[in-house]
Amino acid sequence: MAKKMLYGGDYNPEQWEESVWEEDMRMFHLAGIDCVTLNVFSWAALQPDEVTYRFERLDKIMDLVRRNHLKVVLATSTAAHPAWMAKKYPEVLRTEFNGMKRKFGSRHNSCPNSPVYQKYSRALAEKLAERYGKYDNIVAWHISNEYGGECYCENCEKAFRVWLKEKYGTIEEVNRAWNTSFWGHTFYDWDEIVAPNLQSEHFAENRTTFQGISLDYRRFNSDSMLNNYRAEYEAVKAVTPNIPVTTNLMGFYKPLDYQKWAKYLDFASWDNYPDTVDTNAAVAMRHDLIRGLKQGAPFVLMEQTPSVTNWHPYNLLKRPGVMRLLSYQAVAHGADAVMFFQMRRSIGACEKFHGAVIDHVGNENTRVFCEISQLGHELEALGDLTLDSRTPSRAAIMVDWDNWWALEYSAGPSCELKYMDEILLYYTALYEKNVPADIISTEDDLSQYSVVIAPVLYMTKPGTDEKIRSFVKEGGTFVTTFFSGIVDEHDLVITGGYPGKLRDILGIWVEETDALPSYMKNSFTWNGKTHEAGIICDIMHMETAQPLAVYDSDFYAGTPMLSANAYGKGHAYYVATRSDKDFYADFLQHILDEQNITPVYPPCEGVEITERDKDGKRFLFFLNHNDFPVSLPLETDGTSLLENRPCKAGTTLQLPPKGAAIYQC
Amino acid sequence: MAKKMLYGGDYNPEQWEESVWEEDMRMFHLAGIDCVTLNVFSWAALQPDEVTYRFERLDKIMDLVRRNHLKVVLATSTAAHPAWMAKKYPEVLRTEFNGMKRKFGSRHNSCPNSPVYQKYSRALAEKLAERYGKYDNIVAWHISNEYGGECYCENCEKAFRVWLKEKYGTIEEVNRAWNTSFWGHTFYDWDEIVAPNLQSEHFAENRTTFQGISLDYRRFNSDSMLNNYRAEYEAVKAVTPNIPVTTNLMGFYKPLDYQKWAKYLDFASWDNYPDTVDTNAAVAMRHDLIRGLKQGAPFVLMEQTPSVTNWHPYNLLKRPGVMRLLSYQAVAHGADAVMFFQMRRSIGACEKFHGAVIDHVGNENTRVFCEISQLGHELEALGDLTLDSRTPSRAAIMVDWDNWWALEYSAGPSCELKYMDEILLYYTALYEKNVPADIISTEDDLSQYSVVIAPVLYMTKPGTDEKIRSFVKEGGTFVTTFFSGIVDEHDLVITGGYPGKLRDILGIWVEETDALPSYMKNSFTWNGKTHEAGIICDIMHMETAQPLAVYDSDFYAGTPMLSANAYGKGHAYYVATRSDKDFYADFLQHILDEQNITPVYPPCEGVEITERDKDGKRFLFFLNHNDFPVSLPLETDGTSLLENRPCKAGTTLQLPPKGAAIYQC
Amino acid sequence: MAKKMLYGGDYNPEQWEESVWEEDMRMFHLAGIDCVTLNVFSWAALQPDEVTYRFERLDKIMDLVRRNHLKVVLATSTAAHPAWMAKKYPEVLRTEFNGMKRKFGSRHNSCPNSPVYQKYSRALAEKLAERYGKYDNIVAWHISNEYGGECYCENCEKAFRVWLKEKYGTIEEVNRAWNTSFWGHTFYDWDEIVAPNLQSEHFAENRTTFQGISLDYRRFNSDSMLNNYRAEYEAVKAVTPNIPVTTNLMGFYKPLDYQKWAKYLDFASWDNYPDTVDTNAAVAMRHDLIRGLKQGAPFVLMEQTPSVTNWHPYNLLKRPGVMRLLSYQAVAHGADAVMFFQMRRSIGACEKFHGAVIDHVGNENTRVFCEISQLGHELEALGDLTLDSRTPSRAAIMVDWDNWWALEYSAGPSCELKYMDEILLYYTALYEKNVPADIISTEDDLSQYSVVIAPVLYMTKPGTDEKIRSFVKEGGTFVTTFFSGIVDEHDLVITGGYPGKLRDILGIWVEETDALPSYMKNSFTWNGKTHEAGIICDIMHMETAQPLAVYDSDFYAGTPMLSANAYGKGHAYYVATRSDKDFYADFLQHILDEQNITPVYPPCEGVEITERDKDGKRFLFFLNHNDFPVSLPLETDGTSLLENRPCKAGTTLQLPPKGAAIYQC
Repeated sequence: MAKKMLYGGDYNPEQWEESVWEEDMRMFHLAGIDCVTLNVFSWAALQPDEVTYRFERLDKIMDLVRRNHLKVVLATSTAAHPAWMAKKYPEVLRTEFNGMKRKFGSRHNSCPNSPVYQKYSRALAEKLAERYGKYDNIVAWHISNEYGGECYCENCEKAFRVWLKEKYGTIEEVNRAWNTSFWGHTFYDWDEIVAPNLQSEHFAENRTTFQGISLDYRRFNSDSMLNNYRAEYEAVKAVTPNIPVTTNLMGFYKPLDYQKWAKYLDFASWDNYPDTVDTNAAVAMRHDLIRGLKQGAPFVLMEQTPSVTNWHPYNLLKRPGVMRLLSYQAVAHGADAVMFFQMRRSIGACEKFHGAVIDHVGNENTRVFCEISQLGHELEALGDLTLDSRTPSRAAIMVDWDNWWALEYSAGPSCELKYMDEILLYYTALYEKNVPADIISTEDDLSQYSVVIAPVLYMTKPGTDEKIRSFVKEGGTFVTTFFSGIVDEHDLVITGGYPGKLRDILGIWVEETDALPSYMKNSFTWNGKTHEAGIICDIMHMETAQPLAVYDSDFYAGTPMLSANAYGKGHAYYVATRSDKDFYADFLQHILDEQNITPVYPPCEGVEITERDKDGKRFLFFLNHNDFPVSLPLETDGTSLLENRPCKAGTTLQLPPKGAAIYQC
Repeated sequence: MAKKMLYGGDYNPEQWEESVWEEDMRMFHLAGIDCVTLNVFSWAALQPDEVTYRFERLDKIMDLVRRNHLKVVLATSTAAHPAWMAKKYPEVLRTEFNGMKRKFGSRHNSCPNSPVYQKYSRALAEKLAERYGKYDNIVAWHISNEYGGECYCENCEKAFRVWLKEKYGTIEEVNRAWNTSFWGHTFYDWDEIVAPNLQSEHFAENRTTFQGISLDYRRFNSDSMLNNYRAEYEAVKAVTPNIPVTTNLMGFYKPLDYQKWAKYLDFASWDNYPDTVDTNAAVAMRHDLIRGLKQGAPFVLMEQTPSVTNWHPYNLLKRPGVMRLLSYQAVAHGADAVMFFQMRRSIGACEKFHGAVIDHVGNENTRVFCEISQLGHELEALGDLTLDSRTPSRAAIMVDWDNWWALEYSAGPSCELKYMDEILLYYTALYEKNVPADIISTEDDLSQYSVVIAPVLYMTKPGTDEKIRSFVKEGGTFVTTFFSGIVDEHDLVITGGYPGKLRDILGIWVEETDALPSYMKNSFTWNGKTHEAGIICDIMHMETAQPLAVYDSDFYAGTPMLSANAYGKGHAYYVATRSDKDFYADFLQHILDEQNITPVYPPCEGVEITERDKDGKRFLFFLNHNDFPVSLPLETDGTSLLENRPCKAGTTLQLPPKGAAIYQC
Repeated sequence: MAKKMLYGGDYNPEQWEESVWEEDMRMFHLAGIDCVTLNVFSWAALQPDEVTYRFERLDKIMDLVRRNHLKVVLATSTAAHPAWMAKKYPEVLRTEFNGMKRKFGSRHNSCPNSPVYQKYSRALAEKLAERYGKYDNIVAWHISNEYGGECYCENCEKAFRVWLKEKYGTIEEVNRAWNTSFWGHTFYDWDEIVAPNLQSEHFAENRTTFQGISLDYRRFNSDSMLNNYRAEYEAVKAVTPNIPVTTNLMGFYKPLDYQKWAKYLDFASWDNYPDTVDTNAAVAMRHDLIRGLKQGAPFVLMEQTPSVTNWHPYNLLKRPGVMRLLSYQAVAHGADAVMFFQMRRSIGACEKFHGAVIDHVGNENTRVFCEISQLGHELEALGDLTLDSRTPSRAAIMVDWDNWWALEYSAGPSCELKYMDEILLYYTALYEKNVPADIISTEDDLSQYSVVIAPVLYMTKPGTDEKIRSFVKEGGTFVTTFFSGIVDEHDLVITGGYPGKLRDILGIWVEETDALPSYMKNSFTWNGKTHEAGIICDIMHMETAQPLAVYDSDFYAGTPMLSANAYGKGHAYYVATRSDKDFYADFLQHILDEQNITPVYPPCEGVEITERDKDGKRFLFFLNHNDFPVSLPLETDGTSLLENRPCKAGTTLQLPPKGAAIYQC
């Protein structure tokens, strides 16, 4: 998309007098900023009433930034509708999960199934494309902003019925898919179906009496917003077919099935706002998810804070060096752009204490600006060297939104069973070994991988088992865990013995699932060490599999907690319980050794090391998350890019606290 | 009702293809199952629209089970209305405590005061009776299912006014009963009265500004559902006068006054789903409540899980032997039937992970099925030996729903004061001594008891004090506690000094009630040991009573915390504070000794021992809740029934971990 | 207002048969009670329908108390509207923050912007004035009762728009003040503006996406109720210009800006209900707030409980002596009247377990009545000696409701930052030194003070900085803290560097604000001791100020956490972090020494000592909060008033546990 990594971020000159604009330009230049995201929340300004559009001020802004040689990510401004629209057409307002009809206010406030919203959001996108398509400094369209939330209004209810008709054809098929004969919920007509919320099937946010309808509503809601996105996508593409289009995602955002959305993005982009309690691995995993959405293609880090957020309970400053370190972490995982929210700190409303490139003090004499400026100049120096390089991964972790939704709607076995927790445990074990992993969907091609891990693959959708079967037959190693293979795509149990369609691959029968309260634990011994077992303990029988370790206690003492099944040329493992970090490290080492997968670099505690490759060149990224310096012996000759210094094998690479290095070799 | 204990449970063949029905029959036979509960949630299937009824499939099912010699508990299916009814008549939907109007979904979803619901639920019951009354294998009608919840809709509001008119006659009397002159809430007309919920008098679920109206609404709501039950009762009785009728209760279920309902049940039945944190005593107490509802008559354990629930936070498996142990516990406390929810595990919706006789694997080769089968054959062997035997209790614990409601609506003295906690403390002390106790209402005859304990008898309804007075005069021992005798049936304070109408019986005047925060404690010495005093400390004066122990500290140090009053031929005790478990054990031993009440068997820790008698035969039930075996010396010759083994006095009875024995002597 | 302190309280004879009234009179006389508050909740009784008024029973009551030589505080009864009014005019009912329309019930139930409520509340006040104005025993009007809460109904929404028009003139100015260009919330017409609640701009009680509108709504809501008060004020004043008017306040009650209300009160009065977890300093601070509302004029303690509340989670009895001690604490801080809620304990509804002068037992033989009686006779003996005396304070703490609202609506930096916590820390340090402090508003005159402390002065309203500037220039000592000087009166950030308009006075630039999670701490050394730093750590640069102490650790180790700026003849201090109690004690001692402020009496732990002066006489109040006796050396000759005993300098004053003394010297 550019000859260097884009560097800049959300810029809202419309909040300021024009007199400050030139000062902004001066400071952007100082900081090496070359790209701004414009027009994110300007709908009310651009369209003051139903028939009028006013682009004069945006024209000025577009001209200003072009004159100053800035690239533009141009947003369509449809993430928050104008107040007049809410007054005139209350249908654009959402209805909450508890049935509360919203009034004008907040963000994420439009009903995705409002014809009025659909009409005017698409119209605005089209008008923007027509007016600004000719600007050659536009590098991307940014549709709406951080799509999210749900709506349960009447329009959605009606659209849901249409969605169901398209999916199921007949009401009988709906009844079957949702198992409505349970509790006598049989529907005889489409309009007997209501949106599943706190007024109907739900008794809490994640608790529903009918998982089938709730699961379909999640799919429908995600699809509804995707339709909004696609309508705008088509509107701008019709005018500017060569400008790539995206919308900024939010990592593992549960309400929207990003893997389905990804098909409609020209490139992926996301906003990275780690909480102080997030581990480095958790952040890395989110980057890998985004990279995986487009099968490894580079992505854009669309937003991060230069210094501080305002909406966490405790808004700790990013310590010196941390903004740079996290920027390189994004790049290390596949980003080809580093962008911030926000360029100039606003003076009113809820983000006024969110960090910015230009702080309220208004000048360049701040710690934060200096760090931004340093990074800007580094990125300039780096140029296009790493652009479009790819991450070489032989291991993959399978994540599936439907599985996530269904598992966490499941009534039983344990309130502590959370999909993302389980995913992260396996991811972290690989991360700490410097073994790159792709986060893939159930639709991705498995043939490029040697190891595929699918924690808690509760739902097996059509084709997934066959894909896994082929993968293992051809020599792959497959790992799954307790509570897998239980249901089909409708959340209907596959009868005949768990783990259902995965049973032959895994060579086991799971008879019972025990859910231990937090105060109860079991244990087992593996590879000479005793490990904890908890939360879930599946009790299983070996069919063709071999037991690798057994439970130590309770009435299922001596029965296997870990099994391996030789299947075709490969192996399939079942981990029947939740264990401790040490176990995952040891067990996955065993798996990796079996497939001869080696780390990109020998592990060093607290130092994240990743690789991107391009045209036969390897780029190793070294990220020192420690508060102390580390020295790493270099294995090959190469160049330390950020220092622009050639290095010899046998010498050491010095990383200061929070330091980052890119080593080309 | 049968020549052996009924054994079986909820069976939902309507959720399955007919092809599996015969397999069900085979497995029921294998397991010794002889009774199924049918038709619990079939309304939507039976009545597809307002005018059509379709019984063909139920006919088939009824024929199937009759052909297979199964008895039937036939449900009326009215616990969840059809979706079409909700669409056509939204009035059948409930309005929540917070004013939220419900849409179709969930269970417990019908407004009890909806004329439409009333009409069609009664009609369905009548039609079922007419069609199936001739089946001689029907052993009982099962009206609706687990009645529960509340409604605050307009129909309820109007019905509430009618209920009030019937109760009070004039609006002036309502004003007096509710003390509406406080805060100027005087009503001049009936339709000024609105349902007391979060929109009106309540500021939280259990917090109301006017206890009078809230208490009456609880009574009204319980009566409203009782009316639903009674309407169906009458409908089926009119056709099948000889088939007994019940509905399945839920232990100490606060919203419904089961003691009032019990009058209209031909026999009591309930669903036992202990949580992992429930003590064995707590479960036993619930059985005793149900037995007490019909003055000691045997009851039906209508539902229990064979293995696991799905709706607790942590759904721990019932360990091997535990299902059998808990089944015999029910029998030990008066059950004459052992039934499960559910016969075949459903594949979809919120109970798909609830345990079942036939698991998702679908065959008999499961631990759970084996245990069910073993118990089935034991019950067959037991035959009718213990049927209709009774529990000999000389002690009773008085529990009153009105008191429960009023006490916990009370604003003050302490948020930690919960009626059931206090009841359980006294019950547990008797339970651990193997002293049987009846749970009685304020309307039950006291003359058969030697000891009556009424913890926190906050409300004294008309006649209760006189009943207690006579009981004590005639030689009975009465025990009550702090915060008793405070209010009348309208929750109006009885002025002139606490404990009001109980004052002469107890011989004390309680001047003040101190509520200690959780971090404050007092103490006292009784019988040589120091015990804790907390939560509530009443400060009292002896009038005719004698002090038995005094507080150790604070400004009321030295004043009595325990008193005994000689009254007529009996004694009345007042326990002015909440103490520790040891105190209740010691104090109640004192009371039991005084009345010469002895245990049915000497206590052995972790072993529950109860007695049922019939025709001069004693049946002792031994239930080893421990995880280790115990040996108990036998005191008399007899027969160990489950082993079918004669035993001699002086030999020992061996109980394995979780083992159960019935000893006839 | 009287020749002795008024003594009595809320009296509700309308809840009782007339037969008990004479008994009430007898007991009031016994207890030295000379004043009753009447008619607090009688609207429904006085006005049974829209056109009828019935004063006969109130006439009787008024005659009864006059006959018995009791003074009267006459309430207007408008705190709770009648049920008939809610039925006939649902507009009088409030709409909750979550959009829930209320039905009749509870208290605080009238919409302040309902024309019906406005009409009839004013009419009732007028009628009462006309009917009872001639009673010469009325000492005050008591308008409504404990005004409070919020409403979000359509009437309020419309009134809010009018309020905004009056304040801002144009919609453009509203947009500017609320910074609506952020997130595209621009308004083009007044009726696009909706009330900011959970349906619109809020995502939680104290979380809003637009602080500007939420802040204005708080102001509007406070003003709306103030308008209700003022309408009734004018109605009674028009008839009885010489009777002073008040309404009973509730300490630091966040929803109402009492400092604005105070202008319209003839005298201040409040209800003191400390929780068991409140410190003595916290209670003292509330008294000082109330005294400060009318610039030091004596106030009325309108309500306190004689013994116990009923609405706290744990309702601990006031220990013997505590009621007297807390009564004198009120006097010690400026009260000239000691009143109770309630005279006779009601028998029904939510306050039936609230303490009263006459308990449910109905006679005088209670501990509580004896203590009331003792105090009554002490107050009689004290006569008018201390009436209208004033508190001599050279230190003030600035508290501002707008600042409170805005700070706690702020999104960031820390969820733990609470205005009242910070205020109390500084107040407590002075309190424990026996240094009297006035709680002042930003509008009060500073010239009488030597030290002004304004913790977290986040918002600087027009003129405030200039007032502080003059104060310091003239030699005053000003202290403020982290996160001050950030925004203007619209919650718009003052750009150019924090602390904005206070920057020159403080001589610093605050570059960044770090918010430490609860598990992170920093530290610093001051005056030889190491203290904790937490919650917020501002990172600042000295401009003209001098650093007094520096942070010990983290990346800002060595930068100042405390600064002093010489400015004109005075000094301005900035405390950049939250520290521990010891630090505040030491630091404020430094400040007091600098200004030569000495305690009214040397501190003695657990003994609160305050001063009131009149006509050259000093009254020292000694309040022993300890559970043990203390002896205090007397410094001057004088009289121990409650003992009526002359004392010599050099002798000691003996205070029993919970004892109180007034020493005139």
